[in-house]
Amino acid sequence: MRNFTNVHDIGDLRTAVAEALEVKANRFGYKNLGENKTLLMLFFNSSLRTRLSTQKAAMNLGMNVMVLDVNQGAWKLETERGVIMDGDKPEHLLEAIPVMGCYCDVIGVRSFARFESKADDYEEKIINQFIRYSGRPVFSMEAATRHPLQSFADLITIEEYKTVERPKVVMTWAPHPKALPQAVPNSFAEWMNAAGYDFVITHPHGYELAPEFVGNAKVEYDQDKALEGADFVYAKNWSAYMDPNYGKVISTDRSWTVTAEKMALTNNAYFMHCLPVRRNMIVSDDVIEGPRSLVIPEAANREISAQVVLKRILEGLQK
Amino acid sequence: MRNFTNVHDIGDLRTAVAEALEVKANRFGYKNLGENKTLLMLFFNSSLRTRLSTQKAAMNLGMNVMVLDVNQGAWKLETERGVIMDGDKPEHLLEAIPVMGCYCDVIGVRSFARFESKADDYEEKIINQFIRYSGRPVFSMEAATRHPLQSFADLITIEEYKTVERPKVVMTWAPHPKALPQAVPNSFAEWMNAAGYDFVITHPHGYELAPEFVGNAKVEYDQDKALEGADFVYAKNWSAYMDPNYGKVISTDRSWTVTAEKMALTNNAYFMHCLPVRRNMIVSDDVIEGPRSLVIPEAANREISAQVVLKRILEGLQK
Amino acid sequence: MRNFTNVHDIGDLRTAVAEALEVKANRFGYKNLGENKTLLMLFFNSSLRTRLSTQKAAMNLGMNVMVLDVNQGAWKLETERGVIMDGDKPEHLLEAIPVMGCYCDVIGVRSFARFESKADDYEEKIINQFIRYSGRPVFSMEAATRHPLQSFADLITIEEYKTVERPKVVMTWAPHPKALPQAVPNSFAEWMNAAGYDFVITHPHGYELAPEFVGNAKVEYDQDKALEGADFVYAKNWSAYMDPNYGKVISTDRSWTVTAEKMALTNNAYFMHCLPVRRNMIVSDDVIEGPRSLVIPEAANREISAQVVLKRILEGLQK
Repeated sequence: MRNFTNVHDIGDLRTAVAEALEVKANRFGYKNLGENKTLLMLFFNSSLRTRLSTQKAAMNLGMNVMVLDVNQGAWKLETERGVIMDGDKPEHLLEAIPVMGCYCDVIGVRSFARFESKADDYEEKIINQFIRYSGRPVFSMEAATRHPLQSFADLITIEEYKTVERPKVVMTWAPHPKALPQAVPNSFAEWMNAAGYDFVITHPHGYELAPEFVGNAKVEYDQDKALEGADFVYAKNWSAYMDPNYGKVISTDRSWTVTAEKMALTNNAYFMHCLPVRRNMIVSDDVIEGPRSLVIPEAANREISAQVVLKRILEGLQK
Repeated sequence: MRNFTNVHDIGDLRTAVAEALEVKANRFGYKNLGENKTLLMLFFNSSLRTRLSTQKAAMNLGMNVMVLDVNQGAWKLETERGVIMDGDKPEHLLEAIPVMGCYCDVIGVRSFARFESKADDYEEKIINQFIRYSGRPVFSMEAATRHPLQSFADLITIEEYKTVERPKVVMTWAPHPKALPQAVPNSFAEWMNAAGYDFVITHPHGYELAPEFVGNAKVEYDQDKALEGADFVYAKNWSAYMDPNYGKVISTDRSWTVTAEKMALTNNAYFMHCLPVRRNMIVSDDVIEGPRSLVIPEAANREISAQVVLKRILEGLQK
Repeated sequence: MRNFTNVHDIGDLRTAVAEALEVKANRFGYKNLGENKTLLMLFFNSSLRTRLSTQKAAMNLGMNVMVLDVNQGAWKLETERGVIMDGDKPEHLLEAIPVMGCYCDVIGVRSFARFESKADDYEEKIINQFIRYSGRPVFSMEAATRHPLQSFADLITIEEYKTVERPKVVMTWAPHPKALPQAVPNSFAEWMNAAGYDFVITHPHGYELAPEFVGNAKVEYDQDKALEGADFVYAKNWSAYMDPNYGKVISTDRSWTVTAEKMALTNNAYFMHCLPVRRNMIVSDDVIEGPRSLVIPEAANREISAQVVLKRILEGLQK
């Protein structure tokens, strides 16, 4: 594997999950792979889980890790040619990115949607520039439209807990006070579709995701109906994708909060969320603390998904 | 040892000091202990000495280290159940803490007294939440009421320099322009009492420490009298503990500054301070630079106290 | 080697370049040297290339690395004796620096010219205090008047690409909107003079560098004339050194920008710049992207120059 930005990069999902479970049982079994290899983790946005789990995964593999925090928006890179750079952008990406590539073997990049230009966000302008100009394998630590390390961890978790071959997985929108990117729901949909589960998306009108991510999922506007018979409930807020509301909060309807009453409609479903989660907006205390909540095992699998991705990239470097 | 927050966690002090001196003579002799073990250092407050010395100690033991800086107050965790989290707190501690525990083997926490609620501070609400919810051994890198890695380093230093079995140790308040926590003096008192030294505390009226920390120490309001015959003078500022002045500066009386004249009252005492120190407020230039000043050896022992604590926690993980 | 702040510390340049090329071919061949050794990197100013390349070099040598960012100006150290420290400076350098030395084996310091006092800047007050008080070998990661790791990397690059024994190297001033230190041009001049190249400096009137750095270089105020026959063109902005304009921008004349027309005057010269570079102020897009641009190989050699310096310091510690 060279780069990792979406579900297609990981190849066959059964193989990937099997590898994940093997890595999970033997985290330090591949320390030679990372010897004398350096991971550069570059954060354009703040991070807790991704930072710690990815660094841990790299260290499990024997890698050296360098972390670079780029203050949100403070490090402005010029991207155009021909500009007289006498303003607030001190560096051009055509120098900055290859130079970072000089000092490491693998680059992880976090760069959220900025909601300034839907086209820029959905073309994944930033991470694609790293892929194009860094000269190194690049993986996403959440980009503008996808969060594949999260989705891979979600998949591993579902595979660990499912009791039927093809479970019913319901991703439900839930309210949140701030405008959040669509990266997590987009990515989760992409992976669930690829996994071939019985996958349903439910949200209020106006919160439709981009068609390329919805794929063959069933979209159901009635949350109660969507939840019927669910084996896994994946809650998440996102802001609107559809124009003219791109990046906006158009509802904070708390009737969408996942409560015990809602969970009672399911097939005794497990509850999932990528965290951080706002309690009693997204989900009630009793559901997230209850015996069917998988939020902590799901977070713990972030180390595993990152380790599989790094392991495959390192194996790719050996060829 | 599972957790380390106070003097009782370290057990017999003679044994602990003996182990410290052995570690000091052979810092890299225990590198196998930390192999494949990861320390997460979490700072809710800024740090220089504690950050560097603890990281160094962990690396001496062969551990991997991850450092997480939480901007002062910027990362607000909800702590109550039932709250509709639509405000400025994006995450509940019941998710945040166990997740951090997923990615490491040992957690160090720095979280100062906030002076907002004396009860919250003295119940050590924050570090106790990490002990309760992280699933990992937790040690204090200075909490609301104690700074045990500092006190342990102080004890090691006194044991290295003392010439009588039971030296007279005097902890004296000294002036400072800002309101400082009581963690260092509380903790020092706790360790000196446990060590069984001839221990005297001196401060202006109104600066009485909590009785559980004063213990059997002699409290003397006349600084000159307190200093008579002292073998070690430990200077420190703290803000008032007693209500209604909790967390307030009620005196900046510079007659309490430790000067050569004051030191002349002692038994040619050594001078100690945990640093950082404000010169000519806490202590005069000539005393801190003089041949009896132990501030640098004392700081150097921070690496040793941290290494003993981490070593014991790692040994505990092996059982 | 004990400390590294200027060209004289590295000794014979032929030997140093030969060692650099050997290290470049065998980066991980000296991992035993750094075992159980810790590098403390201390940044008073922000850094991208220096941070990553120096950390990478230290890890190549098997060292542990600790990075300490001191917010620009936020950590104010008192430097005078006798001051009653009741203001905004919480610590005296006479405590702070030796304590940092306690927890590491080697210290790298970045501290730019502050343009508050030319005497303070040109006496290298800050890095010299580290050399004097830390008790450890100290190297410059760019100080007030020199950036020797950059100049050493520049030298290695020229040696790799030169086709004649004694190439003509031209350092040209170029415009920039901000007031930049003289550290890079001073240092480059120092190293080029030491290398014995045919070295020419060109800049507008008023941008004369300090005579001790200009040395025997030819100073030519006509840029076109300077560029004639050049084998290497090294572009850089700097602010005025000469009083009363010390630290000021006195020209932003864009006729000094290095363009294809300018490069046509040379002997098909290579283009060099230390980065970050403002395009179309310092250099045109076509020149920096062209086949004779060495900016990326030059940046890559930062890892090598840092590794040679650290290797020699580590060898010095073994004696």
